[in-house]
Amino acid sequence: MTEKLGGEGNTEFDTIRSLLARWGPLAEGVGDDAALVRAPRGDTIVVSVDDHIEGRHFRREWLSPREIGYRAVAAALSDLAAMAARPAGVLVAFGVPRGWRESLMDIADGIGDAVKSVRTKILGGNLSDAGALSITTTVLGSAFAPLRRSGARAGDSVYVTGRLGAPTLAIAARRAGRVPNDLVRARLARPTPRIFEAIWLADHGASACIDISDGLAADASHVAAASGVSIVIDVRRIPCVDGASPADALASGEEYELMVTAPRGVNVEEFARRFSVPLTEIGRVDQGTPGVLLDDAGKRVAPPKGYDHFS
Amino acid sequence: MTEKLGGEGNTEFDTIRSLLARWGPLAEGVGDDAALVRAPRGDTIVVSVDDHIEGRHFRREWLSPREIGYRAVAAALSDLAAMAARPAGVLVAFGVPRGWRESLMDIADGIGDAVKSVRTKILGGNLSDAGALSITTTVLGSAFAPLRRSGARAGDSVYVTGRLGAPTLAIAARRAGRVPNDLVRARLARPTPRIFEAIWLADHGASACIDISDGLAADASHVAAASGVSIVIDVRRIPCVDGASPADALASGEEYELMVTAPRGVNVEEFARRFSVPLTEIGRVDQGTPGVLLDDAGKRVAPPKGYDHFS
Repeated sequence: MTEKLGGEGNTEFDTIRSLLARWGPLAEGVGDDAALVRAPRGDTIVVSVDDHIEGRHFRREWLSPREIGYRAVAAALSDLAAMAARPAGVLVAFGVPRGWRESLMDIADGIGDAVKSVRTKILGGNLSDAGALSITTTVLGSAFAPLRRSGARAGDSVYVTGRLGAPTLAIAARRAGRVPNDLVRARLARPTPRIFEAIWLADHGASACIDISDGLAADASHVAAASGVSIVIDVRRIPCVDGASPADALASGEEYELMVTAPRGVNVEEFARRFSVPLTEIGRVDQGTPGVLLDDAGKRVAPPKGYDHFS
Repeated sequence: MTEKLGGEGNTEFDTIRSLLARWGPLAEGVGDDAALVRAPRGDTIVVSVDDHIEGRHFRREWLSPREIGYRAVAAALSDLAAMAARPAGVLVAFGVPRGWRESLMDIADGIGDAVKSVRTKILGGNLSDAGALSITTTVLGSAFAPLRRSGARAGDSVYVTGRLGAPTLAIAARRAGRVPNDLVRARLARPTPRIFEAIWLADHGASACIDISDGLAADASHVAAASGVSIVIDVRRIPCVDGASPADALASGEEYELMVTAPRGVNVEEFARRFSVPLTEIGRVDQGTPGVLLDDAGKRVAPPKGYDHFS
């Protein structure tokens, strides 16, 4: 947190001090008007911003404060993974209503968990009163050759990390008044930003990458549009968590898994050994009208609509 | 805006397209999961985040939507000025209530004004529903040798750009139900981030810098604490706008002027000629207990308390 935040009264000053104390060495060096970042020579800086707003991106009764903090930052870090960038730090702007004040240190712990999990640090931030809890996270990273959405070429294979569909199951359970099973709940509460997986994939020939935040079908269509290619997904190959259908997986947003394309075979066994996460070939890149088609037992069909958040 | 934002439904998708069309070449290249920034070789990246929340940092009835957009981004850019950094781009995360939707393009125009005024561009952002309008701006810049708060040394002179006190007068007028005069109103609605002034000052020997967002007295105390020095401000020398007293100026926050220290005389006439803004020597840096003292006609007194926003 920069001290400039302190302009908002002594309470905020004290809160910022408490946050910095809580984070300890994770937030060392904070205190100027802006933070300094040094990238390795020749690297490009990669930056993204993402927000998490109460009632819009999460519900208080579904997640603990620590999980809310973790998830907000993990989701933002997932955008660095999509570019195969190495994290250089995060800035966190909080909007905190009075009713959330006593949970702020738990939220900070969750943010610390996410930051530590990818071996980066907290560079600065901002603290304001607000009507609803909001956590706006800016992530910075660097890469020598960032992966783009636009690099997919006809002939490439299409891969996805992990197993999809858990967020859809978790939300369906909550809506039906049930508590989701532990595995499904953990996937919603503690998604892993695939930072190290993405760097490995870039080093092993990946041509394009996106993180699955809108649903596999919608995100594949973003890559197809940016690359000017047709992406054909074999529905039977989509890796699903237990209880989820391929249709759930195609529409399930906020997965924070990666979809990548690569021109030559990627060693999926080596990937699985290294990261304890499956990498599954689910389709191929073709010439033709940019867009996504599903291969459903030999029939080509249009994909379902994208994910519509909690709203 | 990155397309990932589009996950939040077709309305947001369309709104993002409209924003990008409105910004045109100011936002070219937006569309991946994260934005790419290249700094000149040897430069350090400088980054800061700042938020502007309705009812907290501005009131709808005091500023036009275009002014609100301008001010949010200008305030964030002021943090780059404080580091003498050259802007490399901004990311804007909007929280937009239904009642503000029709003003969003005017807000975008104001953001464009601020971005153009410092010759930078919009790298990306985020759009969400929210209960109150919020604009969270991440600014990126670069500098070979960023100015810090910690560089002031005993024997340095203390300078301030511009004339202080206008925000205090503007708010006092509004609270009394009056419309502030044009000059005072413009200083609140259209503050100039002192980017080019700061780079010039760094090139001419400045040792420490801060932007005046909490009030001259409070911000001088930040520099004093970071540098481990005593700062003595001559009250009679503080440059004030017409109608403001030195006491107003000392406590007036959100000025977005700069306070700098420098070990040798800075040519204030050349500065004024080049930027059409005064640069005034207002005090000196001493050894002694870190803190701020006022020299009020020969008497040394403690400064008044800092600024307390609109709240």
